[in-house]
Amino acid sequence: MNKVDVAKSSWNVLREIFEESVPFHKSLGIKVINLEMGEPKLSVDMQDKFVGNFVRGNLHGGVISCLLDVIGGIVAFVDVVNRRDITTSDAKIEQFSKMGTIDIRVDYLRPGFGSKFIASGFVLRTGNKVAVTRMELHNDDNLLIAVGTGAYVVG
Amino acid sequence: MNKVDVAKSSWNVLREIFEESVPFHKSLGIKVINLEMGEPKLSVDMQDKFVGNFVRGNLHGGVISCLLDVIGGIVAFVDVVNRRDITTSDAKIEQFSKMGTIDIRVDYLRPGFGSKFIASGFVLRTGNKVAVTRMELHNDDNLLIAVGTGAYVVG
Amino acid sequence: MNKVDVAKSSWNVLREIFEESVPFHKSLGIKVINLEMGEPKLSVDMQDKFVGNFVRGNLHGGVISCLLDVIGGIVAFVDVVNRRDITTSDAKIEQFSKMGTIDIRVDYLRPGFGSKFIASGFVLRTGNKVAVTRMELHNDDNLLIAVGTGAYVVG
Amino acid sequence: MNKVDVAKSSWNVLREIFEESVPFHKSLGIKVINLEMGEPKLSVDMQDKFVGNFVRGNLHGGVISCLLDVIGGIVAFVDVVNRRDITTSDAKIEQFSKMGTIDIRVDYLRPGFGSKFIASGFVLRTGNKVAVTRMELHNDDNLLIAVGTGAYVVG
Repeated sequence: MNKVDVAKSSWNVLREIFEESVPFHKSLGIKVINLEMGEPKLSVDMQDKFVGNFVRGNLHGGVISCLLDVIGGIVAFVDVVNRRDITTSDAKIEQFSKMGTIDIRVDYLRPGFGSKFIASGFVLRTGNKVAVTRMELHNDDNLLIAVGTGAYVVG
Repeated sequence: MNKVDVAKSSWNVLREIFEESVPFHKSLGIKVINLEMGEPKLSVDMQDKFVGNFVRGNLHGGVISCLLDVIGGIVAFVDVVNRRDITTSDAKIEQFSKMGTIDIRVDYLRPGFGSKFIASGFVLRTGNKVAVTRMELHNDDNLLIAVGTGAYVVG
Repeated sequence: MNKVDVAKSSWNVLREIFEESVPFHKSLGIKVINLEMGEPKLSVDMQDKFVGNFVRGNLHGGVISCLLDVIGGIVAFVDVVNRRDITTSDAKIEQFSKMGTIDIRVDYLRPGFGSKFIASGFVLRTGNKVAVTRMELHNDDNLLIAVGTGAYVVG
Repeated sequence: MNKVDVAKSSWNVLREIFEESVPFHKSLGIKVINLEMGEPKLSVDMQDKFVGNFVRGNLHGGVISCLLDVIGGIVAFVDVVNRRDITTSDAKIEQFSKMGTIDIRVDYLRPGFGSKFIASGFVLRTGNKVAVTRMELHNDDNLLIAVGTGAYVVG
């Protein structure tokens, strides 16, 4: 494979790791999309077990904060990988293992109604030690449910 | 029942709601302890599906932020109920339905290793509109895994 | 005066209050711009007394967090005033006196070098009780120095 | 001087730097106390220019966030210095120059009334790269005005 193919193939490996090898992601049914495009997003289908308010039937805040934390980490990771031109799966996995969340803030804006939710984000700044990201969660009507800010050690 | 018995019985009703009627709590196996003592805590047993880092086997950050958000809300709720002397189950449930998380911050201090985790918290200030709480997550060796701060609408 | 003139005039009164009647704003030399346009911003000229790092000469983090807190509050205030169609100076002042910061998060992205700084922001969501805003601080080269998120009681 | 004297003398040098050489600290009249005890605190006297609400006369939120950011940084710094046994003034100054605030959260609990304010804090966790601190601001009646949490690069 040439370098572009290696990079593309390595994103497929990473996506499978994020979706299948992280038990809590698999438990929530998180799908990682657009990873190889440099604009990673998460997609989850609403499930009965995600409900917080059993009268109203909306998404539990804990699912929201989880999705925002995860997308923030992946967005920071993709930014570092692209900046440092890390191409192979092994090198990407090694980089990922060095990263970790320092802290996040989550702002709950609206009740999480919907049949599907999309988490997205972008990097505000990546330094040698720390990346700062902003994250958003939309439902399938493109309504903004929650936002977040995260700081991540970049390794 | 006299007033004390009503209050005690109402806490049992509430605990069952928190544990059994909130689907995401039930899915995580959250147990609510010391609710009637005015010092509510959450207890969860480690499960395979909670793992974030499949190499190291530690608790996923999303589970951590969820537990801290939930205990913050319960701590704020108990404080409001006690301040306003809300005794019956129905009145407590109505009060709970009016509350909601405005925002939380979570600081991840150490990898979440352990077979059991305890989330606790306390109220910094309850006003007419907003309560502010601090939360902590310890493992079964009493090691501090994460802390949080939350702001909640008190209804 | 007709209603439009009253509203315009009332913004002039408010701007003078923000700049002249709030002692700490006056002490920092904060100028409020675009208030009547619905897109308020703060402008401050760098001053010797604002320096944090005396070797490097950059803006102190405390000035940064102050500017972000202030612009967040003003952005929330303008949004509430426009939504509720509050036109006179007196009604605006009364509304302002009911508002207050619940909490803010500030992310320091780059050292605050520059001869002038502009703080801007926008509302993510205004409810009946709480408004959530995002804020940014740029220097005169339009470099993003810091961002923030704030929750405000809207009265 | 023996090692203990060197360390004690170096704290005096540092305190003078914090109070006199950081222009914004000097402008606010910040006094650093208990630095050599390993329990640093800030003390500031109320001043007319610190007022936020000119009707009520309370401390501006920007002064509050500034004091909490500063004490968080100093608390993190003292912890690192003690852990790494950094004794001379020059080594301490070099360490301080490597540190910086990643982000802070400030929760405003009560209006800042008082003639004097004390900012204190403690370290939740110091790692190789990041320290996390909690901070508090009390007035001279020992009333808790505000709390904060900060993440700092430790160099």
